[in-house]
Amino acid sequence: MATRRYAFGRVDEVTHPDSVRATVSEFISTFIFVFAGEGSILALDKIYKVPGASAGELVVIAVAHAFALFAAVSASMHVSGGHVNPAVTFGALLGGRISVVRAVYYWIAQLLGSILAALLLRLCTNNMRPEAFHVSVGVGAMHGLVLEIAMTFGLMYIVYATAIDPKRGSIGTLAPLAIGLLVGANILLGGPFDGGCMNPARAFGPALVGWRWQYHWVFWVGPLIGAALAALIYEYVVIPTESPHTHQPLAPEDY
Amino acid sequence: MATRRYAFGRVDEVTHPDSVRATVSEFISTFIFVFAGEGSILALDKIYKVPGASAGELVVIAVAHAFALFAAVSASMHVSGGHVNPAVTFGALLGGRISVVRAVYYWIAQLLGSILAALLLRLCTNNMRPEAFHVSVGVGAMHGLVLEIAMTFGLMYIVYATAIDPKRGSIGTLAPLAIGLLVGANILLGGPFDGGCMNPARAFGPALVGWRWQYHWVFWVGPLIGAALAALIYEYVVIPTESPHTHQPLAPEDY
Amino acid sequence: MATRRYAFGRVDEVTHPDSVRATVSEFISTFIFVFAGEGSILALDKIYKVPGASAGELVVIAVAHAFALFAAVSASMHVSGGHVNPAVTFGALLGGRISVVRAVYYWIAQLLGSILAALLLRLCTNNMRPEAFHVSVGVGAMHGLVLEIAMTFGLMYIVYATAIDPKRGSIGTLAPLAIGLLVGANILLGGPFDGGCMNPARAFGPALVGWRWQYHWVFWVGPLIGAALAALIYEYVVIPTESPHTHQPLAPEDY
Amino acid sequence: MATRRYAFGRVDEVTHPDSVRATVSEFISTFIFVFAGEGSILALDKIYKVPGASAGELVVIAVAHAFALFAAVSASMHVSGGHVNPAVTFGALLGGRISVVRAVYYWIAQLLGSILAALLLRLCTNNMRPEAFHVSVGVGAMHGLVLEIAMTFGLMYIVYATAIDPKRGSIGTLAPLAIGLLVGANILLGGPFDGGCMNPARAFGPALVGWRWQYHWVFWVGPLIGAALAALIYEYVVIPTESPHTHQPLAPEDY
Repeated sequence: MATRRYAFGRVDEVTHPDSVRATVSEFISTFIFVFAGEGSILALDKIYKVPGASAGELVVIAVAHAFALFAAVSASMHVSGGHVNPAVTFGALLGGRISVVRAVYYWIAQLLGSILAALLLRLCTNNMRPEAFHVSVGVGAMHGLVLEIAMTFGLMYIVYATAIDPKRGSIGTLAPLAIGLLVGANILLGGPFDGGCMNPARAFGPALVGWRWQYHWVFWVGPLIGAALAALIYEYVVIPTESPHTHQPLAPEDY
Repeated sequence: MATRRYAFGRVDEVTHPDSVRATVSEFISTFIFVFAGEGSILALDKIYKVPGASAGELVVIAVAHAFALFAAVSASMHVSGGHVNPAVTFGALLGGRISVVRAVYYWIAQLLGSILAALLLRLCTNNMRPEAFHVSVGVGAMHGLVLEIAMTFGLMYIVYATAIDPKRGSIGTLAPLAIGLLVGANILLGGPFDGGCMNPARAFGPALVGWRWQYHWVFWVGPLIGAALAALIYEYVVIPTESPHTHQPLAPEDY
Repeated sequence: MATRRYAFGRVDEVTHPDSVRATVSEFISTFIFVFAGEGSILALDKIYKVPGASAGELVVIAVAHAFALFAAVSASMHVSGGHVNPAVTFGALLGGRISVVRAVYYWIAQLLGSILAALLLRLCTNNMRPEAFHVSVGVGAMHGLVLEIAMTFGLMYIVYATAIDPKRGSIGTLAPLAIGLLVGANILLGGPFDGGCMNPARAFGPALVGWRWQYHWVFWVGPLIGAALAALIYEYVVIPTESPHTHQPLAPEDY
Repeated sequence: MATRRYAFGRVDEVTHPDSVRATVSEFISTFIFVFAGEGSILALDKIYKVPGASAGELVVIAVAHAFALFAAVSASMHVSGGHVNPAVTFGALLGGRISVVRAVYYWIAQLLGSILAALLLRLCTNNMRPEAFHVSVGVGAMHGLVLEIAMTFGLMYIVYATAIDPKRGSIGTLAPLAIGLLVGANILLGGPFDGGCMNPARAFGPALVGWRWQYHWVFWVGPLIGAALAALIYEYVVIPTESPHTHQPLAPEDY
């Protein structure tokens, strides 16, 4: 676990091939996720003249995000850690799990992947304007902010427990699936209120290409706060107690 | 398997760091599950002026519960055993798999996690009143009670077979997914009759915050009886026969 | 692999504890599967005065069967082989993977589990009459028969490849999920034509309790033929070539 | 890894039993996938007099393809590599992962499997004419072409990262699921624009049996280009750097 708790990374990290590979992996995985996620919303815009929220549309959006994020995290887990989300990278940075240099690389790659996805979607769909996340009528920006904090807290907690915790055992195999499907569940909850974002990169590319910036800050501030809270709680409350006589009841390895 | 078949736990269990970590894990996992589960119902209330059961709405609710419970169990399996449900804790207690002290800790954590989820939902949604489980028109309390017993029997049986059975082998990797998706399947069945609860903590937080108590006892008594039956049958009928010349046909490990 | 290619089983198999455990496991797993599967159809009958096939209803039925079968197979894979289906047991028998004695035990347990599920559903739902599988208007019994053969061929092929093949490697971990989800996919295909059964036990309990026998033979003959074809092809064409210098390109273990 | 980077395969490959087994596996797996995928579209044609795209229908089609492809890839991964798609075989060929001889065998098997599925569907459904992929009103052939390139790029990238990369570690267990569910997500995106194909074999059988050839070239050229791009990028950019002091942050094996 050579990468843990260094503040700025190794001297050669800026140009090291592994950093390049991990950055490419984050770029392409974020592209795959945003292409399917934002694309599913444009697909509904194509079907319905007046696209409005319905249970069926909510299922389409949630499942598209869940399945695509699962695949994208699977494809990058062994190369970059499978963040695909600037808020997750922020949490991993606060918990001391990646260096500042690498975090900056990931953030740039994630945002560029999202922009490329939004541009290609505009090209494929004969110039449909990407939607962007916004807070719905009847709820205010502060409601959306609390909702994003709560949802991203859950997401980062799942990431930490299933993909980072050194004691997670065989559950690590399912980490990409747990991450993807929780995002799907949270979109079923958050969709009608603020779209259910939990990911600044997911929001940024479509907002830029569609030039829709109202409430955009909510989808940066909320996810970053939520991920920070979960990372700090998991890293400093759940992990630390490594007493010599630990027992882990009901854990798969122990029975 | 140091935790098995003690009645009251070790002397130091009350203050042991592992108990604290496991309790925190149950608290946060139950929060994540109830937040998405109850939240998906409020999301439908937001979309439909007169929310009524339809096939699409049923899918939204079932998938939100299934995916969120899978993620929540994944995140706590290696720390607390991944109960996220007072009825499951009760079954594990009857089967001698956890101590009374630890069960009480878990129950308190599960109920507090559910209450926090319901309170935060009320805050995020601009004060929407949580729904609560109740028995539908056309079926009585006794029908709902039998239904909850039968559904929770199935749930606890899956928990025992995939997450507790010492001979479960590699299937243990899929345990959180089997647990989450069975709850989803049972909601597709039970939804129009009594909501498909199987979990007193899932019922309690929203009932408290929404102050809806009619039929509430059904969602305590049914799940506790169902989980007790499954735990006793699995522990004392399916597990015991450890004859020296056992063979397990078609089991993944044996071929 | 002591269980392979014996015709009638060991002398003590009739009363051996393992046979009893496996039989109990098949009984309860089939109960869990049929309870959720048939139950999801009664749930739609409860919602819609005139239940008719729609895309949303099709999703409810397919997902309920897929998720519940996955959980049921997970819970019995390490105890009984996870058949939960008389046609699968028939295929395993023809391929020499289980004995005649054990197959008879499984068949009885599967049918009893299905009957219990249908009876309990009738009790929970205030006496709703179970639906049964039948061939739709516009297609004849022979169309349904060919469809059942083709769908069950696919199901048994998946069972053989992921749960029985001695060379399946790490893919065995996913076997219950592949089995459950293929049944879901096939219901999305077969639903509007003949219900998408693939399982005589799934058909039998509800037919008995609801007393609906028209076309019932289709759901015995079709699955048994389809499973037999797949088992024989996999056992005698795909498995045999164990040449000393085999290579398995792209297999997880080989890279 | 004896199979890597040979141009034409071993002398005995044409008649080697392993080649035969792998070819049979691709044939049957492609049959299973196309039967459920194309079948789900005919099922909707059976329900709706005027089948039009709706959110619910989109979910049916996406889930049928996702679940069936997951099962089909699971069943063939350890035998043939689990391609089930001529574009994936083309990518694996360009990356030097299979020989030309084997690729030709796979292509023939995949196309025959698709044709058999389309013929059997015509028989089961009382002679319904298979649908075929085409570009929707409002988007042109070039839009469809770019969309197919982008979607298949993502699919092949997931295949390479989770099923081929020698350093993928434990994520390989989830490869068939990641492949299947990404196809599902991409159909939710691409469905209303061009059907969301990503697989020439999936397009060919129904086009032949239904005799619908308009835009058919789009579903060959697009997937082949997309798969080629992803294979070359992954093989020559992401994999190569095997420096002696590599570290893989956050990878499951390393913590």
